[in-house]
Amino acid sequence: MDTVVLKFGGSSVADNKKINIVAEKVIGFKSKFKNVVVVVSAQGKTTNRLINEAIELSKIPDEREMDMLLSAGEQVSAAKLSILLNNKGYNSISLTGWQAGIITSDIHENAKIKEIYAGRLKKELASGKIVIVCGFQGMDQNQDITTLGRGGSDTTAVSLEAALEADKCYIFSDVDGIYSADPDLIENAKKLDSISFDEMQEISDAGSEVLHNRCIKIGKDYDLNIIAASTFTDNEGTKIVKKIEGSSIKSIVKNTDMIQYKLTKQGVFDRKETYSVYNELLKNNIPLQHYKSGREIEFYITKNNRNKLENILETVFKDYKYIDSKKVKLSIIGSGITMDSRYMDEILKILSKNKVEIISIESSQSKIEMIVNEIEDSVVKELHDSLIK
Amino acid sequence: MDTVVLKFGGSSVADNKKINIVAEKVIGFKSKFKNVVVVVSAQGKTTNRLINEAIELSKIPDEREMDMLLSAGEQVSAAKLSILLNNKGYNSISLTGWQAGIITSDIHENAKIKEIYAGRLKKELASGKIVIVCGFQGMDQNQDITTLGRGGSDTTAVSLEAALEADKCYIFSDVDGIYSADPDLIENAKKLDSISFDEMQEISDAGSEVLHNRCIKIGKDYDLNIIAASTFTDNEGTKIVKKIEGSSIKSIVKNTDMIQYKLTKQGVFDRKETYSVYNELLKNNIPLQHYKSGREIEFYITKNNRNKLENILETVFKDYKYIDSKKVKLSIIGSGITMDSRYMDEILKILSKNKVEIISIESSQSKIEMIVNEIEDSVVKELHDSLIK
Repeated sequence: MDTVVLKFGGSSVADNKKINIVAEKVIGFKSKFKNVVVVVSAQGKTTNRLINEAIELSKIPDEREMDMLLSAGEQVSAAKLSILLNNKGYNSISLTGWQAGIITSDIHENAKIKEIYAGRLKKELASGKIVIVCGFQGMDQNQDITTLGRGGSDTTAVSLEAALEADKCYIFSDVDGIYSADPDLIENAKKLDSISFDEMQEISDAGSEVLHNRCIKIGKDYDLNIIAASTFTDNEGTKIVKKIEGSSIKSIVKNTDMIQYKLTKQGVFDRKETYSVYNELLKNNIPLQHYKSGREIEFYITKNNRNKLENILETVFKDYKYIDSKKVKLSIIGSGITMDSRYMDEILKILSKNKVEIISIESSQSKIEMIVNEIEDSVVKELHDSLIK
Repeated sequence: MDTVVLKFGGSSVADNKKINIVAEKVIGFKSKFKNVVVVVSAQGKTTNRLINEAIELSKIPDEREMDMLLSAGEQVSAAKLSILLNNKGYNSISLTGWQAGIITSDIHENAKIKEIYAGRLKKELASGKIVIVCGFQGMDQNQDITTLGRGGSDTTAVSLEAALEADKCYIFSDVDGIYSADPDLIENAKKLDSISFDEMQEISDAGSEVLHNRCIKIGKDYDLNIIAASTFTDNEGTKIVKKIEGSSIKSIVKNTDMIQYKLTKQGVFDRKETYSVYNELLKNNIPLQHYKSGREIEFYITKNNRNKLENILETVFKDYKYIDSKKVKLSIIGSGITMDSRYMDEILKILSKNKVEIISIESSQSKIEMIVNEIEDSVVKELHDSLIK
């Protein structure tokens, strides 16, 4: 075979011992593939630590500078892996995002890959080297360093798969594939052999962190081979495929990271005001869910955007009052889920029996998503056992 | 005044509290100078930590990869300082070595600055921004990241002073200038108001870490204004000046980092063999001191090059046996020191009285340097009090 891209997440390179395991895995692939490209995230909790240190310095840190700060993390892990592979006798080289030719938009902290100039990467591969690329990062047209947002290393990996026309891309993490539910929550959650890009997209939207959202979209658009597998076992992993026939529930995701905001003012919000809030938040890259307006403006965000949001509310929209409260998002995912009404019947029956109060529901062809005040893990398990065969 | 360059070492940016002190200092300069350029080192012991982690992975880490690894350190401190200054309402931007246009030779871990393309830097200054440059690093013609060797941030700072034709460059650290001896060793060591570039060069060669060697050479060559001062006080600091009239002893430095190596073989080393050892070590950027040959080859290195050296001895010169032993280097510095024989008389009298065994002596116009087996701090104090008025 020709070319493979291997992506290792932060927990896979958390310390030197784990980097050793990764190196052995990489060497294994080098015996099977002519060209091996490795994409790494920052070590362990590095990114979170840096974010916390930055927030100590500034509640809303400058976004360009945050990218400068965070991108240092992958540089460290990539260099360390390269040092080890060279020491084991495997010629290798680490490249930053810009050295790997990854050109992005200039939306700092949430940049999109626009183009990959893979000249240098191909040159290094042609000389027999294992090439290690810093995930999560690129460079914009101003020669500023950008980052791709949370989970961006997955996007780096599949983008490189597309740019290099590689045979496969493995996304390694500390779980050995995609599960029907969080195994920490639901003991008998089962590993899926395969899942469609659409289903995977919904699982990712729901808040599961196994595969990054944008990576899945690229995988679908370019019809790539992507496999989610474990760094620490030799288990098969889960293949993400184009289409799966028939309908069945694949996965249930409980996301406790949601915060509901309710904005109020004297009187009712008019269309212009409603639009202005929506627009301001989007402009600041705060993804909104279930946005509704009228007497109140109501929407949901995830916890990580809380500081940014509240800063905007307190400066740009200081005439409005707001109330925030924690909510839970429950997502039930499977191709064609809304095509078969028995699924919805069963879900509502179990929720109602357990007195779970549903605040709102959204659905698509392959997902039913509900915001609830709270839901016991035992109820999630009941749903899982009843719906997933 | 127009332009000032401020350099802050690792201990000055070790944590967020100290970065706050640095930020206030920078803001103070911004009120006096139109253009403020700040050069920072990596935080605290970051560089040492990264080196140790790399050595765990490989006894002799690949040098290109080491530069990739270590250069991440300044990226973190520069971004943090910029985040804080922006938060305090001062427009600022951090630039990596390559973004600041610092082009170096391709000798990894010990690169020399060849050119500075200051276009972007000048553009950012012209827009009123405080520009923070990552010290210690640059980029070579292969677009690989390079580092300038220990203390390289000083070199970055004075090189920028020259490139920008700045008025002054302050080298800030946690000591408030150049002392007649290490104040930790000699209680009554006194701070010097001024010192010549030549004397400063000798102090740096002797192993004092206040100012980097190459930085002093650039300062001398370009006739720059350099001031060594403290981040944490408002004391005057020490000016480094072109020439000082008259002779006087300025400083005594005891360096306990020296290791003596003695190589032996069957018979005597011939000229070719002697040359071959010397050349191999230089080629590997191992600075040698007091190199002598004959029946034995004898030389001294500093501790930080030990792993690299022993690896060469055990691979390239495995037919030779070697013995290593710790030694102490004592340097006594002052312009014209060897022009006045009374100094040498006094030195030898004190050393002989205290039974200090001298292994070798080297001297120049402004330095007397001795290798000794060991020397008590009390004897160094006696020399200091007798020689420095």
